[in-house]
Amino acid sequence: MAGSSYGTLFTLTTFGESHGPAIGGVIEGFPVGFLVDFEAVQAELDRRKPGQSKLVTQRKESDKVQFLSGIFEGKTTGTPIGFIIPNEDQKSKDYTHLKDAYRPSHADFTYDIKYGHRDHTGGGRSSARETASRVVAGALAKQFLEAQGIKITAFVDQVGGIKLSESEIDNADFTVIEQNLVRCPNAKKASQMEQLVQEIKQKGDSIGGSIFCTVSGVPAGLGEPVFDKLHAELGKAMLSINAVKGFEIGSGFGSISMLGSAHNDEFMEGGKTKTNHSGGVQGGISNGMPIYFRTAFKPVATILTPQNSIDSSGNSVIVEGKGRHDACVVPRAVVIVEAMSAIVLLDFYLRQKAVNF
Amino acid sequence: MAGSSYGTLFTLTTFGESHGPAIGGVIEGFPVGFLVDFEAVQAELDRRKPGQSKLVTQRKESDKVQFLSGIFEGKTTGTPIGFIIPNEDQKSKDYTHLKDAYRPSHADFTYDIKYGHRDHTGGGRSSARETASRVVAGALAKQFLEAQGIKITAFVDQVGGIKLSESEIDNADFTVIEQNLVRCPNAKKASQMEQLVQEIKQKGDSIGGSIFCTVSGVPAGLGEPVFDKLHAELGKAMLSINAVKGFEIGSGFGSISMLGSAHNDEFMEGGKTKTNHSGGVQGGISNGMPIYFRTAFKPVATILTPQNSIDSSGNSVIVEGKGRHDACVVPRAVVIVEAMSAIVLLDFYLRQKAVNF
Amino acid sequence: MAGSSYGTLFTLTTFGESHGPAIGGVIEGFPVGFLVDFEAVQAELDRRKPGQSKLVTQRKESDKVQFLSGIFEGKTTGTPIGFIIPNEDQKSKDYTHLKDAYRPSHADFTYDIKYGHRDHTGGGRSSARETASRVVAGALAKQFLEAQGIKITAFVDQVGGIKLSESEIDNADFTVIEQNLVRCPNAKKASQMEQLVQEIKQKGDSIGGSIFCTVSGVPAGLGEPVFDKLHAELGKAMLSINAVKGFEIGSGFGSISMLGSAHNDEFMEGGKTKTNHSGGVQGGISNGMPIYFRTAFKPVATILTPQNSIDSSGNSVIVEGKGRHDACVVPRAVVIVEAMSAIVLLDFYLRQKAVNF
Amino acid sequence: MAGSSYGTLFTLTTFGESHGPAIGGVIEGFPVGFLVDFEAVQAELDRRKPGQSKLVTQRKESDKVQFLSGIFEGKTTGTPIGFIIPNEDQKSKDYTHLKDAYRPSHADFTYDIKYGHRDHTGGGRSSARETASRVVAGALAKQFLEAQGIKITAFVDQVGGIKLSESEIDNADFTVIEQNLVRCPNAKKASQMEQLVQEIKQKGDSIGGSIFCTVSGVPAGLGEPVFDKLHAELGKAMLSINAVKGFEIGSGFGSISMLGSAHNDEFMEGGKTKTNHSGGVQGGISNGMPIYFRTAFKPVATILTPQNSIDSSGNSVIVEGKGRHDACVVPRAVVIVEAMSAIVLLDFYLRQKAVNF
Repeated sequence: MAGSSYGTLFTLTTFGESHGPAIGGVIEGFPVGFLVDFEAVQAELDRRKPGQSKLVTQRKESDKVQFLSGIFEGKTTGTPIGFIIPNEDQKSKDYTHLKDAYRPSHADFTYDIKYGHRDHTGGGRSSARETASRVVAGALAKQFLEAQGIKITAFVDQVGGIKLSESEIDNADFTVIEQNLVRCPNAKKASQMEQLVQEIKQKGDSIGGSIFCTVSGVPAGLGEPVFDKLHAELGKAMLSINAVKGFEIGSGFGSISMLGSAHNDEFMEGGKTKTNHSGGVQGGISNGMPIYFRTAFKPVATILTPQNSIDSSGNSVIVEGKGRHDACVVPRAVVIVEAMSAIVLLDFYLRQKAVNF
Repeated sequence: MAGSSYGTLFTLTTFGESHGPAIGGVIEGFPVGFLVDFEAVQAELDRRKPGQSKLVTQRKESDKVQFLSGIFEGKTTGTPIGFIIPNEDQKSKDYTHLKDAYRPSHADFTYDIKYGHRDHTGGGRSSARETASRVVAGALAKQFLEAQGIKITAFVDQVGGIKLSESEIDNADFTVIEQNLVRCPNAKKASQMEQLVQEIKQKGDSIGGSIFCTVSGVPAGLGEPVFDKLHAELGKAMLSINAVKGFEIGSGFGSISMLGSAHNDEFMEGGKTKTNHSGGVQGGISNGMPIYFRTAFKPVATILTPQNSIDSSGNSVIVEGKGRHDACVVPRAVVIVEAMSAIVLLDFYLRQKAVNF
Repeated sequence: MAGSSYGTLFTLTTFGESHGPAIGGVIEGFPVGFLVDFEAVQAELDRRKPGQSKLVTQRKESDKVQFLSGIFEGKTTGTPIGFIIPNEDQKSKDYTHLKDAYRPSHADFTYDIKYGHRDHTGGGRSSARETASRVVAGALAKQFLEAQGIKITAFVDQVGGIKLSESEIDNADFTVIEQNLVRCPNAKKASQMEQLVQEIKQKGDSIGGSIFCTVSGVPAGLGEPVFDKLHAELGKAMLSINAVKGFEIGSGFGSISMLGSAHNDEFMEGGKTKTNHSGGVQGGISNGMPIYFRTAFKPVATILTPQNSIDSSGNSVIVEGKGRHDACVVPRAVVIVEAMSAIVLLDFYLRQKAVNF
Repeated sequence: MAGSSYGTLFTLTTFGESHGPAIGGVIEGFPVGFLVDFEAVQAELDRRKPGQSKLVTQRKESDKVQFLSGIFEGKTTGTPIGFIIPNEDQKSKDYTHLKDAYRPSHADFTYDIKYGHRDHTGGGRSSARETASRVVAGALAKQFLEAQGIKITAFVDQVGGIKLSESEIDNADFTVIEQNLVRCPNAKKASQMEQLVQEIKQKGDSIGGSIFCTVSGVPAGLGEPVFDKLHAELGKAMLSINAVKGFEIGSGFGSISMLGSAHNDEFMEGGKTKTNHSGGVQGGISNGMPIYFRTAFKPVATILTPQNSIDSSGNSVIVEGKGRHDACVVPRAVVIVEAMSAIVLLDFYLRQKAVNF
């Protein structure tokens, strides 16, 4: 109810902010008897964590997950999986100069109004650190889905004005994604993107980006009619990630200027469709074709140049970011997009099991 | 769980398909003691219903809502508001020629796979007729929100390639919206859009469009951290509307190519921001500035030209639409966008009452 | 959230009070493709309805259910099943003399405080008429469960001081239940109970009673650990029925004075237990033995003798019941107990399908 | 969904079993800005923990709660409160002799069937150790409720055949409760109960008991109509506690043999009632009178005498309990009854805030 839980049959509840001893979460509804690959979970956390490269924030958080329950002799037991990730690099002093000032386009102001107080030590629940808990749940969900033949792959397809063309997306080389700092599946564009992010970082500024996500192997039939359409839940999940401003599935905003005769996906023998403008979802339910969608991230709000703002008493102040921050969030957000996709898909997978038994 | 309910404290559950005697719904959590303007509810239904103009489908459904409970002597009682809208124009025969064929980009195929059977008499729950129930709940929510000073206005800002510029949106004349068939707040562009839709209709084809929605008077503090961010729920609500392929809030997809220094909304005295790239939502919580977002609709799948497809036995067939269908769905969808926005906002309004008491 | 919905995967939402045109409900999650026996549904409603005999209230409500959706050519479609039961005998005038007075042990006072107003025309949502909607959903659930070999039987085991002994319960003749006015499976005790109720009715008074419910054929494994234990949900479901003051499963309150060595149910070959003090549920999960539980009903609050009370202005008044009322509610409540049991069991049945697939 | 979460606006999700590093939970929806008395929370845990006296199990678990989030400078922040209680005394070896045998009236058999495997190292989620997490959440809820003038007091009113009379309950001396080992508010009966438990413990057997709970200061208006009646939720909450077999509110099972004229609670000036057979709840909603209810606990299943059973292969075996176990669970369960009552009441308190604002 208070917004920290997600899902229907497969659920994740997260807790924690940076000033406490740990963040963490509780996973319910994970299928029983699944042999967990703990290294793969940690590897996902490592993909998300700050300080991986010169492009992103240099905070050193080891981000080691500790599972507390729900797994016995390496296998899931069907009971809740509790886990924590200790906060090792709290340094709340970094933020004391911001104690009363509202940082532009951050959640300082809105949290203050909502709760009547404000956590000035790093953003509280609005901090992207919370997404580490999502990555843990998402990593488990991904493992299970992969065992069912469902494979999720996200990558950066745009940073600022540098964008993969449709054909570059079609010919994306997934093996390249982890070989460059921006997680782009096209080595040439990746190099341009890296250079752009470096330039902007040096100016103390930030830049937006976009993540493309594709899912293969999804059986037809996932998604629930009317409100809980598959792409509606995917959209909510993506929009719940920090800095996201937009979501589109399949033809997306491009469909606005298309004719129905060109947009409709004709069925071919075997139930596959000739085109896939639907993005793998028709009427809110997967049709067996690859699912693909795109998520827009704004330039992160923290920049190292002075900005006009007010403090909690309403006085004008100059706010100036300090410390270590990402100039572009999308490279790290790739793993969060994958995690949330996995959480949504596993939930619908289980919901369909309860329908079709 | 099965997807026909929406909301947390203010909830709507809908039921019904076109082959039965009625569709309808149950509203729970509507504030007690509110004097309902029944004519205004019916007026919203009339805005949504087919057959309003030469641009949209000519089915004659009177769409008269009957309230069955939860209102006593004109005022809400705090108990569930049940309502029905009788189906008067069932004509299921119209669809018998499609009994076994899967219409491209419809939900025929996916429903068949999901449930192991298919309702060929008009689309069942995937039919847009279900949205009439949303309009009833949304109309009630709108009335309550307006009494609190919260005003929702949606309009068509794009049909095919004809699009309002940013300045045309800023200077939108809301009084014009209901005076043209496409519900565009710019008379000149409206006329161009109408002509385009007419041309496409005559060809038996369809075209996409976009709806812009703005909400004024929303107090700061609405929305819940982490998963149930205000714009994440708005996104889900919009994406749950038939034919929607994309959603963006504030700067949306345009933010990808912006710098943080340009994108950040500096605070001014009084808590207002100089710009509003955030679209009225920061960290998932309303900041008191106008909320605005944009929803992309694909060209409707039903077209009157022959298309290749398969039937449920896997045989190749030619599908040819018949009857009365919209060439462009956005004019009628304006009221559904408003309704879903109202449902989402009233829910968050009540959730915040439970936090801040 | 507002209390008118029940269940997790199989859900019922009810609406309606006696002053409106109809009561009704929406059922979600009913398994797809099930051939509905409509006459059996109506028969359950007829078992519940008032005016069946001289023992119970003489209001003539035909209580005819109309299904509006979710069933096509007699079979469930997997989509929400909406239904209404028109109110035919509203006679709200009966209650005008009570407009301002709070009837002792009714919900008049508490509803007035809760909502800031009061529905004096028959009790509003606190009226037992609401349970007719539960009977519709329960009748459908019973049909499905019976097709899986799960059989629910409830009967009256006590009226006032007249009580079936343990041995009389063990030797209950289920064929007798519908052959007497109190729905007791022992003809002799039934006759005594009938006589007692008649006497009390003639005095304008009322008397309490108890219902015993047994369920055979429940597979082991239904119920969820910790909070959603099978008997905890059964308890909530029973306590949500009007006039219920107590619930016990298996050995119940009698277990307080037992020794563990006598109470423990030893396992025998095949997994059956020698005794069944557990009542078919261990650790909150069914163990395959018959489930049985007992529900206590207070004497109904409406009596035809004068009582001291106050009105909404706080003045002392004398309240005197008029009209037609049950002297003992348990005979009619038997069908409600069965209905709620079926709703709970079908929900857990589906939840287990989502666990064990 | 999987049963480890409770509540609607104030929610608790628990996790953990005895073989892992910790148990714990996440609390959502706790009112913001409340100054937590941490010592009082720990004191409640200490009241629940084993090894307090010669009457109860001698396991030494320090049961120290660690709060991980949601509290800043001693005050609640409105964000999720995560907490853990490390497992210090795992000794899973104690149970290896039971690895394949099903202990009579335990959850071994049902968990094995439900999940297809079994946690033989102490009961897993069916272990009463899970209730420590409920005590943490309940202790916080109690603090908040007490600040609103709502006071919850539970005590043992029966052990085996030794029972407080109605007059002894009316004259209960709450100051005595913590001064005797059985937590009975009547020193004389307490002494008899202690002696009985000691005798039964020496025989290696166990005995049932009952807990009476009373709540003063509850404002009228809490509880939701129809399904989520206040006493229905209290009943579910109590029945979800290990070893509970029955629940009654107000007159409870005793109401069965009462006449309506005697049972009805006449209203007096000021809205109070002359009698309180309703137990403070009418129509599922609190009426401002003290709430009271009674919960029946069976004799705990673990006894130290040999019992016939089967193992997971279906072979007959003799099961013999070892180690340290309670002969009677009710003294420690008093704090769990109070905790669950507080959780239920705080949830309804917040739900009413969302109705009446």
